[in-house]
Amino acid sequence: MIAELISTGSELLLGQVVNTNAQYISARLAELGIHLFFQTTVGDNRVRMEKALSTALGRADIVITTGGLGPTLGDITKEVSSGVFGRTLELHEESLKRIQAVFAYRGLKMTENNIRQAMIPQGAIVLPNNRGTAPGVVMEEGNKIIINLPGPPYEMQGMFEDAAVPYLTAKYGLKQVIYSRVLRCFGLGESSLEEEIKDLLKQQSNPTIALLAREREIHIRLTALADDVAQADSMLGSLEEVIRTRIGQYIFAVNEDTLAKVAGNLLVERKCTVACAESCTGGMIAAMFTDVPGSSAYFVQGVVTYTNEAKIKLLKVKEHTISRQGAVSEQTAREMAEGVRSLAGTDVGLSVTGIAGPGGATEAKPVGLVYIGVAMPDSTSVYKYVFSGDRSSIRLYAAKTALDLLRRNLLGAGT
Amino acid sequence: MIAELISTGSELLLGQVVNTNAQYISARLAELGIHLFFQTTVGDNRVRMEKALSTALGRADIVITTGGLGPTLGDITKEVSSGVFGRTLELHEESLKRIQAVFAYRGLKMTENNIRQAMIPQGAIVLPNNRGTAPGVVMEEGNKIIINLPGPPYEMQGMFEDAAVPYLTAKYGLKQVIYSRVLRCFGLGESSLEEEIKDLLKQQSNPTIALLAREREIHIRLTALADDVAQADSMLGSLEEVIRTRIGQYIFAVNEDTLAKVAGNLLVERKCTVACAESCTGGMIAAMFTDVPGSSAYFVQGVVTYTNEAKIKLLKVKEHTISRQGAVSEQTAREMAEGVRSLAGTDVGLSVTGIAGPGGATEAKPVGLVYIGVAMPDSTSVYKYVFSGDRSSIRLYAAKTALDLLRRNLLGAGT
Repeated sequence: MIAELISTGSELLLGQVVNTNAQYISARLAELGIHLFFQTTVGDNRVRMEKALSTALGRADIVITTGGLGPTLGDITKEVSSGVFGRTLELHEESLKRIQAVFAYRGLKMTENNIRQAMIPQGAIVLPNNRGTAPGVVMEEGNKIIINLPGPPYEMQGMFEDAAVPYLTAKYGLKQVIYSRVLRCFGLGESSLEEEIKDLLKQQSNPTIALLAREREIHIRLTALADDVAQADSMLGSLEEVIRTRIGQYIFAVNEDTLAKVAGNLLVERKCTVACAESCTGGMIAAMFTDVPGSSAYFVQGVVTYTNEAKIKLLKVKEHTISRQGAVSEQTAREMAEGVRSLAGTDVGLSVTGIAGPGGATEAKPVGLVYIGVAMPDSTSVYKYVFSGDRSSIRLYAAKTALDLLRRNLLGAGT
Repeated sequence: MIAELISTGSELLLGQVVNTNAQYISARLAELGIHLFFQTTVGDNRVRMEKALSTALGRADIVITTGGLGPTLGDITKEVSSGVFGRTLELHEESLKRIQAVFAYRGLKMTENNIRQAMIPQGAIVLPNNRGTAPGVVMEEGNKIIINLPGPPYEMQGMFEDAAVPYLTAKYGLKQVIYSRVLRCFGLGESSLEEEIKDLLKQQSNPTIALLAREREIHIRLTALADDVAQADSMLGSLEEVIRTRIGQYIFAVNEDTLAKVAGNLLVERKCTVACAESCTGGMIAAMFTDVPGSSAYFVQGVVTYTNEAKIKLLKVKEHTISRQGAVSEQTAREMAEGVRSLAGTDVGLSVTGIAGPGGATEAKPVGLVYIGVAMPDSTSVYKYVFSGDRSSIRLYAAKTALDLLRRNLLGAGT
């Protein structure tokens, strides 16, 4: 089956709202095993909407529209859709009663134009709206189907799940299972990663493999189409194993976990506590740690020592370390990590010092130069990087790299 | 002029990402006075992308694509676009040098596939990418134009503003000036704000008024169409003045500045320094302060005292304050603010303690309860809130509220 999506509404063409409906429906169709090759957005214009519908019906089995089911004169989706199939609208008494009941319940007077919402194409299947007034519609004509869903995301999602999915499942006897697994990678670029698994990407069919760069991570999404969950699981497992032999060290989590969550889990497993001292990341690492519910079990303290004075006074970084080697240096990172470990009395101390820019660079120390220190109970390691990007990007990369180094050190792997 | 937008990328068809690029470009085209009747999304598939481009060129003057300029084999937008105009790609030496320089600067090895990014359609205008490696492209053929922009929103926005808008303005002699001003508000809900300026929203025409809720802020975007900048400026100024008489105290910035930047500017003006002590926000306030270049001039130190021990040891919060009134209490917030002020030797101390959830609530202290302390040289104020939402949302609201309270205290307004 091939579906196509038409989002209607001039507010989308004017950029006044983001089209989250397109994402929601697309993701759900992929999971149902229904292909989607085009999404189109069109305004509340009869001629252009008709054109979009005809084009979509020419290349897809199922055309799903969102929006334009409201009471105003600009809401024309049902009218145009029924016209494409040569039908007219007629009053649907049951829907009218439902709409009247909703207004009565809210203690509001129902205006004349709300009756428009109860007008339904001849011979259509009505999809009830449990979260609003406008009913949805399914029209079948030969082997083509049009489904009209409402525009407000909350109403649309409810109707999609409660009525459209059951309809599609029954109609097409969808019994295959679509199952996904996301391998979250950090520490190598998209093109390097692609180089490592080029052959797998080329020969992919089922499971499929998709690479997605997101906030300096790369997510590898594996999707299997199978007869049941166990089969899908085994297909995904085999492919994951092959990928792990190539780039296993960069995979920090499967599916949802963040770097901070994974590092936190390792700390809990090893009964370790951590504290961090941040300069250029300025609190981002602490914020990532504490974004995880229950992080108070292992995250004891964070300090943001933005000035030299704070580094010296609070973390006991030696004055001559800063004066001779600078605040951004291997030795300062080392003393910060050891200093915060001792200040907070934790098992592990994590530190970051660097130049996030745009100012602060010298010839020897460019923007993006970052030192990260990991003070473990038995030894301290310091790592040097030169990150690219703007200030925010450098800070984000540095914070995530620190968490990844903590993870690797806890795994006993170093870098 | 009529434009059409084609978003490329299988990740969009699979619903893995929301298409924010479509909204951004659509909004900007509306401001430029360029019509947009269709947005299409298509995957990384040669045949279907070609079809989408041909269809778009059949009904629009300008076709703008986003995505598919990367180094991988799936990145085919330039290739397909040039094919539609019967052209081939050729190596653009200048772009290659730029890409090589980026890799050299990062100390990374450039892989073979990155050369793809420097391949440019014959006779095309190259749009430089100041925020990434992939250059963009403009191709003119008769009275039709194709513009290829990158997919990552940060890169796309930079290239659109720096290169595409100047190109379009020059090409079409857009001589009316579209000029916008964004009033950034914090501390009141969207519906309350709407209520305050309902009449202005209803009677708007030029300038237009749009409300946009973003990360717990509300941005009021005023857009004027005028003959020149001076005229636009005066139109926007008059409207801003009217809005300020209604909700002036909630407007913390005009256009780009963040709450942290505004608070930082006030600290600089008043020659004050600040330090912060965070519990439930866990470093977010420090991260917001230090996201501003040059913040080291006033942001001296941050501490994340997630445990009671850290609050007592580092900030000198009294043990009996915590044992009697609890770590989430007015008195603890007060002592944390005063404690960090004294620890760091700053003029101002800022503190947050609260329950971000999902755990940690009691009958008397619900999830969302947050105390914020502001220790000024002459007195300390503590503010109590109960924020709604999930953990991330409560933390974000608490952090921004702390910065807003600092701003209000520096302005001498309190809350």
